[in-house]
Amino acid sequence: MTTLNKVTAAHVAALREITGEKNVLVDEESLDRYAHDETEDLHYLPEVVVKPETTEQVSKIMQLCQRELLPVTPRGGGTGLSGGALAQFGGVLISMEKFNHILDIDERNLQVTTEPGVITEVLQNAVKEKGLFYPPDPSSRGTCFIGGNIAENSGGPKAVKYGVVKDYVLNLEMVLPSGEVIWTGANVLKNATGYNLTQLVVGSEGTLGIVTKIVLKLIPLPKHDLLMLVPFRSAESACAAVSAIFRAGYTPSAMEFMERDALDWVSQFVQSSTVQIPDDIQAHLLIEVDGNYPEVLMQEMEGIAGIVEGFDIGEILFAEDSTQKDELWKLRRRVAEAVKANSVYKEEDTVVPRAELPVLLKGVKDIGRKYGFHSVCYGHAGDGNLHVNIIRGELTEEQWNGTLTEGIREIFQLVKQLNGTISGEHGIGLVQKNYLDIVFDSTSMNIMKQIKQIFDPNNILNRGKIFDC
Amino acid sequence: MTTLNKVTAAHVAALREITGEKNVLVDEESLDRYAHDETEDLHYLPEVVVKPETTEQVSKIMQLCQRELLPVTPRGGGTGLSGGALAQFGGVLISMEKFNHILDIDERNLQVTTEPGVITEVLQNAVKEKGLFYPPDPSSRGTCFIGGNIAENSGGPKAVKYGVVKDYVLNLEMVLPSGEVIWTGANVLKNATGYNLTQLVVGSEGTLGIVTKIVLKLIPLPKHDLLMLVPFRSAESACAAVSAIFRAGYTPSAMEFMERDALDWVSQFVQSSTVQIPDDIQAHLLIEVDGNYPEVLMQEMEGIAGIVEGFDIGEILFAEDSTQKDELWKLRRRVAEAVKANSVYKEEDTVVPRAELPVLLKGVKDIGRKYGFHSVCYGHAGDGNLHVNIIRGELTEEQWNGTLTEGIREIFQLVKQLNGTISGEHGIGLVQKNYLDIVFDSTSMNIMKQIKQIFDPNNILNRGKIFDC
Repeated sequence: MTTLNKVTAAHVAALREITGEKNVLVDEESLDRYAHDETEDLHYLPEVVVKPETTEQVSKIMQLCQRELLPVTPRGGGTGLSGGALAQFGGVLISMEKFNHILDIDERNLQVTTEPGVITEVLQNAVKEKGLFYPPDPSSRGTCFIGGNIAENSGGPKAVKYGVVKDYVLNLEMVLPSGEVIWTGANVLKNATGYNLTQLVVGSEGTLGIVTKIVLKLIPLPKHDLLMLVPFRSAESACAAVSAIFRAGYTPSAMEFMERDALDWVSQFVQSSTVQIPDDIQAHLLIEVDGNYPEVLMQEMEGIAGIVEGFDIGEILFAEDSTQKDELWKLRRRVAEAVKANSVYKEEDTVVPRAELPVLLKGVKDIGRKYGFHSVCYGHAGDGNLHVNIIRGELTEEQWNGTLTEGIREIFQLVKQLNGTISGEHGIGLVQKNYLDIVFDSTSMNIMKQIKQIFDPNNILNRGKIFDC
Repeated sequence: MTTLNKVTAAHVAALREITGEKNVLVDEESLDRYAHDETEDLHYLPEVVVKPETTEQVSKIMQLCQRELLPVTPRGGGTGLSGGALAQFGGVLISMEKFNHILDIDERNLQVTTEPGVITEVLQNAVKEKGLFYPPDPSSRGTCFIGGNIAENSGGPKAVKYGVVKDYVLNLEMVLPSGEVIWTGANVLKNATGYNLTQLVVGSEGTLGIVTKIVLKLIPLPKHDLLMLVPFRSAESACAAVSAIFRAGYTPSAMEFMERDALDWVSQFVQSSTVQIPDDIQAHLLIEVDGNYPEVLMQEMEGIAGIVEGFDIGEILFAEDSTQKDELWKLRRRVAEAVKANSVYKEEDTVVPRAELPVLLKGVKDIGRKYGFHSVCYGHAGDGNLHVNIIRGELTEEQWNGTLTEGIREIFQLVKQLNGTISGEHGIGLVQKNYLDIVFDSTSMNIMKQIKQIFDPNNILNRGKIFDC
């Protein structure tokens, strides 16, 4: 592997030449702000942070780093959950925060062209004002960047009905590690023209290039929605209900699962008394339907309620108004923060075919008992995407960074047996790469590594993310 | 480029050893049956046709061809429109026709696992019996194979609401040119685990490997649909109406455009008197809505009718029953055959953002006048996908294979200007590869060629399709 160099004063001066003085940071306090994301307790200091404002500047920075063989780490909002935006090898961290302009909302074609540093929720609200909808929204939507969402192929609660980021990306402008700039596709809904470079880049975790412009498909905004919270006396039966709802022909716009602890902890964390959880309740499903016809939504809610009633549930809470809906969504969206506030934890982003969820959940608990860890599980059950939060609690350093690794491996082996995979929406980044052999054989791994080499022969860009090569 | 070899008697014997005597064809009549597809009037004889029945046999064939450096052409139903399944360099043609088993319809997870040689319509009907829906269906659905649909990332009329093939493919088993067998992904709805090899293979036109098993997502089958045929006094205003319907918030399940000649010719071809076309009508839109609530569909049809009435239309024909629906769909589906019966033609598969359709259509006609060709246009207007059928008519050999090339180039340059691309669903194959430079710069082309080299270093598999390398 090519040996990369340290950043020198001359490099810093060259970066300042490219982006202007104010967009290059080297003081320790600033560097520290870019040294972590939302993944566990990782900390990697970059040597310099640069904040380009144009595609041309990104290109020049990449040319400099290529020539000087400097490690480059691209970074969005810093909300990642796999360490993808961390400068593991120091070097130059490129923060895309100044690429924060929505360039064109094309109402004629239901498309938006945006820069990658726009906050996802800002983008969603801007198109909403035009009656349009960009569905993928991670829990971090208030702070994450749309560019980061593309790097991780993010999902969020609406994915179950509307799909994930990859289903909305039509075309990307991207700066390659060589500094060359390409567009990956065209602004069209159907494309059978050459290999799908757009889809190769989506989910590639910033290892192939730096995206500088994004063209997204939009859809008409549904006019109405209804929300209900269903308490279950068994977590496994909650998971079983998920599959039953889909088999009955319903496609909810959200179908979120929360174990008892998840809802309990978040209620305390945000000091909410919206939900009172009786002692015998072990899990909840938060179920939303949306569409343009209120009477249809009522029928669907009744149909779904009829199905879940067959699963030993408590009393269903139907959200009465938008305030209560917001309150319930706030609880769901802030579970991760609440867990984090409670303890250091590792989050596994397991995903399986949705009917296998009960088996997965039972397996996770069995493996937890075997290795002595407690887990809090929640996630996008409609997609079969279960976030397994392993709580550090009283585990020793050796257990936490030693034997637990084996426990996680067992969880992922189970996921693989169930025809699932080890990340649904968080990516592999730094923290899951040692498990990638569970789901890919060496032939597939070699193909991926060779693809990386095409784009980045010196491996300067986000080195060590997804895999070593 | 590696020089490939001719097939010898020893090779044929080795193939017979792998698949059994009956699955290897060398007689001229048989070879001739595999020498063409539905693209213009192309004709390329393979040296031998082999019909493997298992993944292991495909792997052994690939190992043989790799060792002996024989050209290999994979073939599905032979209905392609870009020459992708033609044995341009002779060699071994692998027909996937014996991979015709649906392996598992997983009603619990709304997935189907199938072999690639299953006819698309057979697959659709099999899942329909379980109340499930696999939407992508090219006009050739009664004869094309699902594997070929994956090779070309096919669309069809339902794509406008339900997406194209790529939106349904979860996981693929594939034999590489080396003979190694990989799975490209997992059977899950969300996946952020490594590069998206699945999406790289979809639409790669059989140049990266031979798909031997396919896992597809299914959705609940909509229970009802309504269909109407709207006649317009101007083809451009028909195109303009398309965009207006979407901007009003409707998402029809089909939105098909036919120029006057298209409907006229097909009505004669199938001897149908369902539609009488008044003299002043220049184009039609065939518009379908579907869903589970008949009263909602009625509302939507009325809303859409209200919009198109602003565009100088004739009398709308609302299909009264399923017989009339079938009749209208038959007319739309058989347009290509009717055009073919009328004259030799070249079909261009242009696609643009849908609001640009009127500009595209006008441009095509202007370019036609400049180069002296007549075109019949129809297609999936809701997706901005316009099939431009250039009629040979009285054109001389020099015009047809000479100056017309420049006319097509002008059409594609216009498409590019409109942020579109040169194939929406037919692929590049043999016939469009000389135009690929219009939409991809040399950097992107080199990336694609290098990806091809990773999978197929000797370029034995479907050599010369999409690009030369």
